[in-house]
Formats: sequence, structure tokens, C-alpha cells
Amino acid sequence: MSLVRVQHVSISLDGFGTGEGLSLEAPFGHAGERLHEWMFKTRWGSRMIGRTDGTRGIDDAFLRLFAPGIGAEIMGAGKFGPPGWHENPQWQGWWGRNPPFHTPVYVLTHHPRPSIEMEGGTSFHFIDAPPAEALAAARKAANGQDVRLGGGPGMIRDFIAAGLVDHMHIVVVPILLGRGVRLWDNLEGLENMFEIEAVASPSGVMHMTFSRRGA
Amino acid sequence: MSLVRVQHVSISLDGFGTGEGLSLEAPFGHAGERLHEWMFKTRWGSRMIGRTDGTRGIDDAFLRLFAPGIGAEIMGAGKFGPPGWHENPQWQGWWGRNPPFHTPVYVLTHHPRPSIEMEGGTSFHFIDAPPAEALAAARKAANGQDVRLGGGPGMIRDFIAAGLVDHMHIVVVPILLGRGVRLWDNLEGLENMFEIEAVASPSGVMHMTFSRRGA
Repeated sequence: MSLVRVQHVSISLDGFGTGEGLSLEAPFGHAGERLHEWMFKTRWGSRMIGRTDGTRGIDDAFLRLFAPGIGAEIMGAGKFGPPGWHENPQWQGWWGRNPPFHTPVYVLTHHPRPSIEMEGGTSFHFIDAPPAEALAAARKAANGQDVRLGGGPGMIRDFIAAGLVDHMHIVVVPILLGRGVRLWDNLEGLENMFEIEAVASPSGVMHMTFSRRGA
Repeated sequence: MSLVRVQHVSISLDGFGTGEGLSLEAPFGHAGERLHEWMFKTRWGSRMIGRTDGTRGIDDAFLRLFAPGIGAEIMGAGKFGPPGWHENPQWQGWWGRNPPFHTPVYVLTHHPRPSIEMEGGTSFHFIDAPPAEALAAARKAANGQDVRLGGGPGMIRDFIAAGLVDHMHIVVVPILLGRGVRLWDNLEGLENMFEIEAVASPSGVMHMTFSRRGA
């Protein structure tokens, strides 16, 4: 059965999934790369910064779940570009000609535009729709495989609140950001919907998995 | 050297150390005992509910750090009683004749009253003072031993912000409360002040220790 999955979304100890003041120069705002440094230290993540070394332990193992079994991604407008990207008809995302998705990607936006075919199997499709409707489109494109929710935190929260999420891997990074967008707002009682496991990595981050009960 | 310590303060995954709507009937508000159930399952914590059984693993080990080396506690007004307790001259705390502190306890309140001697070595002293001044009084009473900050979350945050905390043991319980008082608000960059460790317990909670760098 096709699942809706969240893979390695990092949040701070105070719950922020992104910082404040996002811009072209600061894609994660004042948070910078503080939520992602743990990834760059892994073998899987080191390629993001042009390296091929790194750890092969628990952090790396979790990261390698990113692509397998995924047939499409849905992302929020705030992930696709800096505030105002929709006013730039040339904007094609942060990731260059060959983005790391390699599937259809549905970008939630109030400013739809024509689809874009990138290299490596990624295509961007722009859709102005509530979570269930966006999921129906992505699921069709996924052709029986799983749909990944790519974030940011606000769109993930919306999908959780709509009861559409089957599995999440959330990484709690032991830093305090103080401001930004929180993942967990207004989700009281989430533990009733999900089986939750936690494991601490020697790197200092905590991996948490949320598996929908009965899914 | 006398340290300022926080022992086993529990917070939800979304950061709340207490719920909303505290009252005589609901000391933790809508949170009920959800933040503390993990404790009752331990041998040390089972006595709180009139039992003497329970686990003897990592959760129990951390809980047993509560009393050793402590010479005084400071607690916030919201821990000593329900909202409005200061209007009841008979109020002597939640804990009966023999409270579980067994040291002098300094209660931060804007409504000081005469000290109370309880059984078992506990005495309550009421003080209207900023963190540093309250700490000076408690430290003197502790007579060379450590001072425990008893909570709630608001008073702990104030002491952290004032740079007065040496060690914290915080327990992250995998539930979402959605509302209440957050421990971590406005503490961006705390990781620069503390060495942070995290370990997941088989019970599902996560133990985090914060040790002040250089302390």
C-alpha cells in the first residue's frame, strides 16, 4: 500500500523546523545550517557539500531511507524558493539542473505555473490545493509507490492535522533556535495516533519515528 | 563547589512543562499526570502512588539523583499551590505534613508570609526576589551543598536566562500537550552554554543532561 512518509526532517530542541528571516541568501533564515550539520557528517549527507566521506552509523542509516520506495514528493512553497519566488518566472528551485528528488514533485502554491521538467527524473508541478487533493495528485503520479512530504514544517503540520501521514522520521537536534516555524504547534494528543520510538545517536541528535497505528 | 541543579523536570515533545488551567483539582492542568507516568513505573517513583515496586533501569537511576547532595530547593509560586494559594493562610503546599524535600525550600512569591516548619526536615520560606537574590539565600541555607531548582518551567527558564544554572536533567516525554507553559522559550543558543547529552530509555522517554561548560 502506498504510504505518506516524512523522511529526516530536523527540528531544534525547542521545536523549530526552520528559522526566521528566510531569504535567497539565507534559505533557512537565522537557523543557517545548524539543523543540518549532523547530515553533512554522514557518508550519505557529505555529498551535499561536495564530499564523499563521512560516518556510516545510525545517522547515515536513517538518511538512506530518503529515496527508496518513494514515487513522488509534495513540498510547501517555502521549500521551493525564497519568499517571492513566484514573482520570478525563471526560478526553478534551489537545486540546479539535476535536483535530488528524481521523481515528480508537487509544489503547493497559491501561484501555480506550468510544470518544469528537470534532469534526472525530477519534474516540478505547481498546485493550489488543500492537503487531501494535493495528495491525490501526488499519489497518482507515484504509481503505487510512497509519497514523501518534503516540508517545511508548516505543510507537514497541515498534513498531520488532516490525518494524512503514515510515517515520520523526525530528528531532534540539541540546539535552541528561539524563533522560526514550529513543527508541533496545535497537535495535542498526537501520541494517540502514532506509535513513537526514540533513539539517541552518538552524534548527539535524537531520531524519532512516528508510525501510524494500524497503518 | 555548590552547584545549581535541575533534576528530572519532564517536558512534552512540544516543550510544555505544565499544562493549561491549573487548579486545586488539576495541579498540572489539562496535562494531568501525562508528564509523570514514566516516573510512577519506576521503583523510586512508585512510592509517590503508594507502591514499592517498579523498574530499576535507567529511568530509576536518573530519578535517584533527586536528593543526594542537595541542601536547599527553590520553587516557583505555581509549584507550591494552585492559583490563589496566597489568599489561603492555611495553605502549606500539596505534600502533607512530611513533604519529599527534607531541606529548606524557598518559594518565590510576590506575597511573602512567615516561614513554615514541616516534618522530616522540610521548611518553607517565602521570598519575593529576583533569581540571583533568591539563590544567595538558598545557597546560604544549603550550607555548602547544591541548590535544586524545583520548577515550574517558568522559574527554571528565568534562572537559565540569568546564567545561574550549572546542571539540568530534562526528560522529554513523547506526547504532545499543545498548550501550557514552555520550558525553552527565548533561550536561543543555549547549546553554547551547556554540554548536552541525550539518551533514549526503553520506556520511551528521552533523558537529556545539560552541564554548564567550565562548571
